[in-house]
Amino acid sequence: MNEKYVHGYTARESVRLVDQANTLADILHSGIVYPAGSNVLEAGCGVGAQTFLLARNSPDASFTAVDLSGESLRAARERVSSHGFTNVTFHQGDIFRLPYEDNRFDHLFLCFVLEHLPNPVEALACLRRVLKRGGTITVIEGDHGSTYFYPETPDAKKAIQCLVDIQAEMGGNSLIGRQLYPLLKKSKYDDVNVSPRMIYVDSSKPHLVEGFTKNTFIAMVEGVKEQAIRSGRMEEASWDRGIRDLYGTTGEDGTFVYTFFKGTAVKSPHPASG
Amino acid sequence: MNEKYVHGYTARESVRLVDQANTLADILHSGIVYPAGSNVLEAGCGVGAQTFLLARNSPDASFTAVDLSGESLRAARERVSSHGFTNVTFHQGDIFRLPYEDNRFDHLFLCFVLEHLPNPVEALACLRRVLKRGGTITVIEGDHGSTYFYPETPDAKKAIQCLVDIQAEMGGNSLIGRQLYPLLKKSKYDDVNVSPRMIYVDSSKPHLVEGFTKNTFIAMVEGVKEQAIRSGRMEEASWDRGIRDLYGTTGEDGTFVYTFFKGTAVKSPHPASG
Repeated sequence: MNEKYVHGYTARESVRLVDQANTLADILHSGIVYPAGSNVLEAGCGVGAQTFLLARNSPDASFTAVDLSGESLRAARERVSSHGFTNVTFHQGDIFRLPYEDNRFDHLFLCFVLEHLPNPVEALACLRRVLKRGGTITVIEGDHGSTYFYPETPDAKKAIQCLVDIQAEMGGNSLIGRQLYPLLKKSKYDDVNVSPRMIYVDSSKPHLVEGFTKNTFIAMVEGVKEQAIRSGRMEEASWDRGIRDLYGTTGEDGTFVYTFFKGTAVKSPHPASG
Repeated sequence: MNEKYVHGYTARESVRLVDQANTLADILHSGIVYPAGSNVLEAGCGVGAQTFLLARNSPDASFTAVDLSGESLRAARERVSSHGFTNVTFHQGDIFRLPYEDNRFDHLFLCFVLEHLPNPVEALACLRRVLKRGGTITVIEGDHGSTYFYPETPDAKKAIQCLVDIQAEMGGNSLIGRQLYPLLKKSKYDDVNVSPRMIYVDSSKPHLVEGFTKNTFIAMVEGVKEQAIRSGRMEEASWDRGIRDLYGTTGEDGTFVYTFFKGTAVKSPHPASG
């Protein structure tokens, strides 16, 4: 493949990811507060959309934010410092070869990362090494297969399927939300708990119509237009109808549903269990 | 068509609907408590699976439960009285020709009824006539298109699609949950509010694996096997694989998601608005 679709690599994407984080902040981050003095690793921080929320919501915890991309890290550092937060350290690094000793961190956090990896169980296992016994992991992922809406049309569904297929072809899995439970179990975490965070949008919720349906979800689908058409997955006319129909769900009689999944788990406090 | 698929018409269905109501009671009925002395109409009470929960949760309200089927009404009456509740009166009748004067009831309740009707807006409008100004309506519906699971297979999805298609061919709409908001608006109710009630099941929730995934959802799909195969929608071998795959989601690594929608609205207290 010559093109690449990884969230955050273009300026428009960068804006989208920050919009998304603001709209969804309460839904995804509710309940995530780390104790004063704890050391938390954010793996795959990207452009810092979640990092800034972590730093804000747990001002007395210390965060280490890691990403493979130097460019994303620069954006993340800029975003966090522009808000005046000083409790985050940034490192360039690879989740699969983390430069930290065993049992280094009290807690782990990752959001919209596993969906891009062909081997999520291995990633979770590599992360587990640097987590203290008794420490927690929090994983947030979407699931594009959780999308449905009214009115629903074949073109709109096909455009979304293009996004799913393109991410799959790149080795990712945009249907991963529903799999968090088995993935965390297979990576040998204990006390796995998965809770869905559904976004239901109708015209009585104009901030979600704008902030989620249009500026997060439809913007994400529109981001793969060129790839979808160039690869022959859809004809341009059909694609354009699909996007028009997705916007149709943002009208007075339209509804739109999407679900994120939040998984939490613990590294067993007993060495015997691994 | 020679066959008919309407919930509650067979003994097995009757058991399923009662199992379903018990498992889902807390999720669907939470927050539904009617004040002492209020008159509540349950439209389309069927075999009484919801009626008994209404009567139990609001012991000082008076319920009128209406259904078209005398046989269902007998089952409903038996179920309610066997639990010792005396606050329900049963009437055989048609939602579209209710034998009550205008503005008779303080509140309306209907659950899993609109999904069977070709004209849900008309039904809601007929019900609105017998509701007092300022009174509320509560509507609960499922949405089969909200179903997804892991592992997901083409046969399993096809079996579910048979259920959707069969209900559509009979004039119903099993994707109606997502439409509650526009339906209530079009029927001239005010203050429409729709809240999704998602059922997320993984193997850490064995009571939902049994009570919901197996005994409610898969049992419902299995109920249309004969119609699905006789009508040529699916080959028997493919159907059997689909059902086997659905049971596969009830294993240790499986997950299953379904969403109900609960809509509430008010009949305007001001005659000017209709």
